[in-house]
Amino acid sequence: MVGTGPGGLKHITPAATEAIAASEVVVGYQTYLDLIPELLTGKEVVSSQMMKEVDRARQCLELAATGRKVALVSGGDPGIYAMAGLVFEMARERDDHVVIEVIPGIAAINGCAARLGAPLMHDFAAISLSDLLTPMALIEKRLDAAASADFVIALYNPKSKKRTDHIVRAREIILKHRGPETPVGIVTAGTRDHETVTLTTLGKMLEAEIGMQSCVIIGNSSTFRWRDYMVTPRGYTGKYSLAE
Amino acid sequence: MVGTGPGGLKHITPAATEAIAASEVVVGYQTYLDLIPELLTGKEVVSSQMMKEVDRARQCLELAATGRKVALVSGGDPGIYAMAGLVFEMARERDDHVVIEVIPGIAAINGCAARLGAPLMHDFAAISLSDLLTPMALIEKRLDAAASADFVIALYNPKSKKRTDHIVRAREIILKHRGPETPVGIVTAGTRDHETVTLTTLGKMLEAEIGMQSCVIIGNSSTFRWRDYMVTPRGYTGKYSLAE
Repeated sequence: MVGTGPGGLKHITPAATEAIAASEVVVGYQTYLDLIPELLTGKEVVSSQMMKEVDRARQCLELAATGRKVALVSGGDPGIYAMAGLVFEMARERDDHVVIEVIPGIAAINGCAARLGAPLMHDFAAISLSDLLTPMALIEKRLDAAASADFVIALYNPKSKKRTDHIVRAREIILKHRGPETPVGIVTAGTRDHETVTLTTLGKMLEAEIGMQSCVIIGNSSTFRWRDYMVTPRGYTGKYSLAE
Repeated sequence: MVGTGPGGLKHITPAATEAIAASEVVVGYQTYLDLIPELLTGKEVVSSQMMKEVDRARQCLELAATGRKVALVSGGDPGIYAMAGLVFEMARERDDHVVIEVIPGIAAINGCAARLGAPLMHDFAAISLSDLLTPMALIEKRLDAAASADFVIALYNPKSKKRTDHIVRAREIILKHRGPETPVGIVTAGTRDHETVTLTTLGKMLEAEIGMQSCVIIGNSSTFRWRDYMVTPRGYTGKYSLAE
């Protein structure tokens, strides 16, 4: 399982490139494969559409079980809200004896944070707002717990065409614990050609464009905006002096 | 600010390599610079020792303010418990007009998760156990909040030579919410030559070797061990069937 990072070829590690080069078959969601055409020359390519993750994982394991070297390509990091868990779950179910290796990639959360400045410098929580596989009550509990303990919060899957209300609810819950001036960064399609970066606040964030490819980062009580950067300081206790 | 990932050259992105190549001066903690000798040829190198982060950040900004291109190298991702926040804090303080760019790297959390299998597949919280810059009461509050809301928990700075009791306390707090059989993964010096990977449980984790370079990942209530892998399933609701 190979992570190709947030977008362009410049954020794919040599380890990932070599794993794809060493494979006989490359399996992946078409949108991610389109980002790495140079790596697919001479490979058997099996692409598939969104929402077919279970089929894709099964196909990989079946191919690998016949002795072929298969690279399952994920955007970002395969281990962060991506395909790695599903492949292991299914391999356990099938009792497959294939060898599975995970090659990490720059996760969306890291790529987006870098574009914003340094919002994740202190303790943070990553929460997906998709309730396809997780009850909304648990998502709400996590939002409340993370907000109450002053974690920086990174929201994955903040919104889809059909699901537009979870981000509204998430903001409500976080506003119980943090002020409306709390900095919020929104990065959509981070590091890709059509990337957008928005710096806003918890009060105004719903006015910004948020979509399926967006990562939303909500600051903690110390996070500040400086110029076009969103920055969370390293600590709380003022033990270090920045001046001479 | 350039992230060089968890260890060897194979996990450094082309974007990071190019940023170092384009710089005139490379600044970094000696241990990280030792991992990338190939990238330092022909550069002015300013290395420094641990615990001098403030000096290092100031030196970078002073050099950059004279018009020089400076690469401040961080292991992992500069935006995750590393130098990026400090540089921005100090630049604000100095009111510097230098251009700052963050090149993300594979963070320790991603590298360690990949070595363990897929422990971070669902909502997770990253918590540092160092109280150098954060009051222990807040660290404990975060541990409790994250454990109570069933986050997978990744512990940074779990232990140092002087500070050996925080990991004991962290385990106690998490045990209030999770069973002793909860899988725990410990990766030390992930992807480096002397890497060690340990799969244990919340009950037995203190018997394992944990050090300054360790990242400790504690599963949520659904995380399981399968062979030598630690896996958190994608969801809770069983909406997808793995069988035909």
